Amino acid sequence: MSHTTVGKYLVARLEQAGLKHVFGVPGDYVLRFYDELIASNMQVIGTCTEIGAGYAADAYARVNGLGCVCVTYCVGGLNVINAIAGAYAEKAPVVVLCGSPGVSERKRSSLVHHQVRDFHTQLEIYTKVTEAAVALEDAAEAPRLIDQTIATCLRTKRPVFIEIPRDMVDTPCAMPHALAPATPHSDAAALKEAVNEAAEMLRKAKRPAILAGVEIHRFGLQQSLVKLVEHSGFPVAATVLGKSVISEVHPQYAGVFSGAISPPGVRQTLEGADALLVLGAFMTDLNLGMWTAKLDESRTINADSQRVMIRHHQYQHIDLGHFIEGLCKTKLHNGPRPRKSVSKASSKPPAAAKPYRARPAKALTVKRAFQRINELLEESNVVICDVGDSMFSGTELVIRRRTEFLSPAYYASMGYAIPAALGAQIRDRKLRPIVFVGDGAFQMTCQELSTIARHGLHPIVFVLNNKGYTTERVIHDGPYNDIHNWGYHLWPGVLGAGWGCEVFTEGELEIALQQATDNRSSLSVINLHIDPMDHSQTLDRMGKRILPARPRK
Amino acid sequence: MSHTTVGKYLVARLEQAGLKHVFGVPGDYVLRFYDELIASNMQVIGTCTEIGAGYAADAYARVNGLGCVCVTYCVGGLNVINAIAGAYAEKAPVVVLCGSPGVSERKRSSLVHHQVRDFHTQLEIYTKVTEAAVALEDAAEAPRLIDQTIATCLRTKRPVFIEIPRDMVDTPCAMPHALAPATPHSDAAALKEAVNEAAEMLRKAKRPAILAGVEIHRFGLQQSLVKLVEHSGFPVAATVLGKSVISEVHPQYAGVFSGAISPPGVRQTLEGADALLVLGAFMTDLNLGMWTAKLDESRTINADSQRVMIRHHQYQHIDLGHFIEGLCKTKLHNGPRPRKSVSKASSKPPAAAKPYRARPAKALTVKRAFQRINELLEESNVVICDVGDSMFSGTELVIRRRTEFLSPAYYASMGYAIPAALGAQIRDRKLRPIVFVGDGAFQMTCQELSTIARHGLHPIVFVLNNKGYTTERVIHDGPYNDIHNWGYHLWPGVLGAGWGCEVFTEGELEIALQQATDNRSSLSVINLHIDPMDHSQTLDRMGKRILPARPRK
Repeated sequence: MSHTTVGKYLVARLEQAGLKHVFGVPGDYVLRFYDELIASNMQVIGTCTEIGAGYAADAYARVNGLGCVCVTYCVGGLNVINAIAGAYAEKAPVVVLCGSPGVSERKRSSLVHHQVRDFHTQLEIYTKVTEAAVALEDAAEAPRLIDQTIATCLRTKRPVFIEIPRDMVDTPCAMPHALAPATPHSDAAALKEAVNEAAEMLRKAKRPAILAGVEIHRFGLQQSLVKLVEHSGFPVAATVLGKSVISEVHPQYAGVFSGAISPPGVRQTLEGADALLVLGAFMTDLNLGMWTAKLDESRTINADSQRVMIRHHQYQHIDLGHFIEGLCKTKLHNGPRPRKSVSKASSKPPAAAKPYRARPAKALTVKRAFQRINELLEESNVVICDVGDSMFSGTELVIRRRTEFLSPAYYASMGYAIPAALGAQIRDRKLRPIVFVGDGAFQMTCQELSTIARHGLHPIVFVLNNKGYTTERVIHDGPYNDIHNWGYHLWPGVLGAGWGCEVFTEGELEIALQQATDNRSSLSVINLHIDPMDHSQTLDRMGKRILPARPRK
Repeated sequence: MSHTTVGKYLVARLEQAGLKHVFGVPGDYVLRFYDELIASNMQVIGTCTEIGAGYAADAYARVNGLGCVCVTYCVGGLNVINAIAGAYAEKAPVVVLCGSPGVSERKRSSLVHHQVRDFHTQLEIYTKVTEAAVALEDAAEAPRLIDQTIATCLRTKRPVFIEIPRDMVDTPCAMPHALAPATPHSDAAALKEAVNEAAEMLRKAKRPAILAGVEIHRFGLQQSLVKLVEHSGFPVAATVLGKSVISEVHPQYAGVFSGAISPPGVRQTLEGADALLVLGAFMTDLNLGMWTAKLDESRTINADSQRVMIRHHQYQHIDLGHFIEGLCKTKLHNGPRPRKSVSKASSKPPAAAKPYRARPAKALTVKRAFQRINELLEESNVVICDVGDSMFSGTELVIRRRTEFLSPAYYASMGYAIPAALGAQIRDRKLRPIVFVGDGAFQMTCQELSTIARHGLHPIVFVLNNKGYTTERVIHDGPYNDIHNWGYHLWPGVLGAGWGCEVFTEGELEIALQQATDNRSSLSVINLHIDPMDHSQTLDRMGKRILPARPRK
C-alpha cells in the first residue's frame, strides 16, 4: 500500500471538493500546514483578521459551494468562531482548519502558548457551532475522519471543524482512494406519497403560491425552482435570506415576503394563498417579519432539506430536489395552467417604483440613494448588504438574473459585508460587488479593504454614514447608539490603493457613481452622509416589531 | 421585603465591586440593560468591535482589579470570546454581560435572530472559557447567581459570564443585602507547616533566589513581595508575564527570567540557585523560554494562588498572601542577611546597557528604537506590548516604580495592545500608555484608535512596521508572512483626531519623539519603518525554540 501524509491527504481532499482559495491568518502551530497549502493548487488569501477570513469564506461558500478558513490554535480559532456560528445558522458550507500543539509536545507540558484550559477546549467549543468537529490525532484514523467531515459539510451545507496537531502534518497515512460521488437519496415510497398529497392540495387550491428560501440556492436547485414555477404558473415570493434565489424580473415573481414588513402586494399574495408551497425556507423571526406573517399551517406544504411538512404531518427521508422535481412531473391544476403574471404595481420592490431623476442640491436620503443605485445594477454585480438599514433597504433592490444577493439576514452579524466582498470576488473576479455597509458595520471589519486592495479587486463600497447605529435608534434609542465619525473615504489613502469620495447631495452622488463605475482597476469607497434618523420604510416597520420604542430622557 | 429589579440588582453589585467603566457594543437584546448602565454611576465606553471591548476590559481589569464587557447575544458574545479566553489563561478578572432573547419570547419560536443552534448554545460555550457561566432566567435565583458569580471572578481573578434575557431586566427581585467582605482563608496548621519547611530550606541555601510571577500583581501582593525581598536579601527575577510586579530599578532586581532566552546574568542567578522560591508564576512555555529553563524541582518552592509545592509534595488551602507574609515573619538566614545588590552589568535589561546617542542618517533598527524609547519612560507611563517582537523587545525595557507593563505573554493573542491602551487609560487618565504594536497586530484591532480619539486619550503608539509577521518569519518563513503595507501614520486623518508621522532614520525618530511627548491632548501614531528581517536578540533566541527553521524554496 502506498502512502502519503496527513497534510497532503487533507489538501488533496479539499481540492477534490472544489476549493480554489483558502482564507486565513497564519500562526506558529499552523505554519507547516500553510506550506502544504502554498504547494497545492489552491491559493492562500491572507486576511488582516480571522473574523474577516471567516466572513470571506462564508461568502465564498455561498458563491462556490464550499469555503475554507485556515487559522492557528485558539487565538485564531476563537477569533473566527462568530463567523462560523453565522455560517451554521444560515447554512454556508465552510471547512475550518486549525493548527494545534503537536501530539508529542503535549506530553511535555499542559501549559503551552495560545491555550485556554486544556488541549481540547477549542475542539469542544467547536462542536457547538459545527455539524462535525474532529482532531486528527491519529494518522490511521485521519483519512476516514477527513473524508467523513468534508462529506458532512457538503451534505448538510453547514460548517465543520478539523484540528491538525502540527506534528501530524508530515505523519504518513494511507493514500486517498476514489470517492463515490455523493448522491442525494430519498425513500421512494415516501417521496411518491408526499408529492401526490402536495399536488392534490395544490390542484384543489384557487389561490396557490410559492415561497422560496435560501436552501434553493445552497442545494443548487435554482433551475428546478424556475421549472416548477413555470410548470405551475403560481406566483412566487422569496424570503429575505433567500432574496435572489429566483430572478426578480421573472414575470411570476411577487417580491420579498416578510410578514407585515413586506410590500402590501406580496403580503396579500402569500397570506391570501389557500395553498402555500414553502421550499427551503428558514422560518425565523427576521425572515417572517418578527412573527407578523400570517401563514396558516393548515394550508401549508413546507419542504426543506430536513423534512417535508404537509399541514400538520411530517415526511422524512425526502430530498428537497427530488420533491421539487416530483412536483414538476405532476399535474398541479384541475383546470388550465394560469397564465397571468403578477401585478407589477403592487408587488415590485419599492426601489423600482418610478424612474429616478437627480435633484442636484437636495441632501441625500437613504430612499433616494437606493433608488438611484438600483438603476446601476447589472447582471455582473453581486449585491452584498451588511446588517441594519443596508439590508432592509437592500431588500428593495431589484436583483436580475444571475445576479447574487448576499446578506446575513438570519444570524445578522455586523461587519459581514466588506470581507464577504473579498470572498465573493476572489472566487469570480468578473463579479463586481456592490457593497452596502453602515458606518457601525464598516468600523468592525474595515481592515479587509486592505486584502481587497492587495488582490486588486474592485468592489464599490457604499458607506451609509448616519453617525451611529440607526437601526438601534429606531428600535430603542440612547447615547450608546452614537459613534465616532470617520473619513471613510480616506481609507484608500491609508491603503495606498483605490479611490474614495464623500457625498452630501444627490448631485454629488451622480458624480461619485460615474467615477466609481469608471474605476474598474481598484476599490471605490463612497462615504454617503445621511441624516442620523433617516432610514428606510422597511426598517421603520421592522424596528417597531423588534422592541417597542421607549421614550428617552 | 422591599424589591428592586434584576437589572438594577446587577448594576448595584458591579458598582460595589469597584467598576467605574463598562466596555461594549450595544445590540437589540441588550438595549434595555444598556439603559440601566447609562443610569448608573458607571460610564459606558462604546467600542468599534466586541473583541476591542474584550481586550480593553482585560487591560482595565489588570489596572483596576475588575473589568467588564457588555454585549449582545451570540454575534456579540462570540465576537469577544477570544479576549475572554485570554483573560482566563492569564487571570484577568473580567465580567462578561450578555443580553439574550426574553424568556417569554422563547415560547413563541425556537428560531430568533442571532441564534446559532439553541437558546443555550452561547452559555454552554462560555462554560469552557470562564470560571462560572450563568443565565438569569429566574428572578428568584438571580440575586444569588449574581453574587456568587461576581465573587468567583474576584476570588479566582478569572472571567465569568452572566447572560440576561431581555425581559428579565425589569423583573422584580429581592434587594441586595450587605455583602460580607471576602477575606482570603488559609488552613492555619498547613500554613505554619509550609512556611516553616520553606524557611528551613531557604536558610540552608547558599545561593537562594526568588522568581515572581503575575499573580503577585493580580492578587495585589506587590508590597508583600517587596517586603519579603528586602527581608530576605535574596535576588529577585520576574517572569515575562510578571514583568513589572517589582520595580526594575530595585537594587535586588535581577531581570526577566525566561530560560535560555534570558540575559546571561539572570539565567545564572536563577538556574544556579540552590533554593528557588517561585511566587505566583505560571509555568508556561513562553514564560519558561520554550522549556529551556533548567529549574530543578528538588530545589524549588513553588507557591501560587492554588497550592504550595515544596520539592515534590503539595500543600493546599494556603493563601498566597498569607504564605508570603508568613515568610516575612520568619528567619530566612542562618548567618547575617546578605547585603550586596545584584551585579548591574550582567543582569540589567539590554536596553539600559549604554547611553543612547542618535546617529541621524542611520536607518532605524528595532534594537536602537527600543534603546532610545527606554530613556523616555517615566513613572506616569504604562508600557503595553502586543504579541511578537513588540513583546520580546519590550521585555528589554526598564520599568520603573509604579510603572505598569501589560502584555498577553502567555495566551499571546495578536491585536491586544491598542484596545488595552484604551482600557488602561480610561481607568486612569494620568497614566499615559506607551504602546508597541507590530504592523500585523495593528491591522487586527486598529479601529479602537477611534474609541481612544473619541475619549480624548493620548497614548503614543509605535507601529513596528516590518511589512509582515516577522516573528513568524524568524520561526518559519513563507509568502504567507507578508502583509499589505499601510500608511499607519495616516490614521489620525481618517479619525479627524490625533497626530501621526513616519520614521525611517534615527534622526527622524528624535523629531518624532519630541512632537509625540509634547502632544498631550490627543493620540500619536508613529510609523517606524523597520527592515522586514530586523528583530531583537530575544526574538532570535525565542524563534529558534518554537520550531526549527526550515529552508524555503
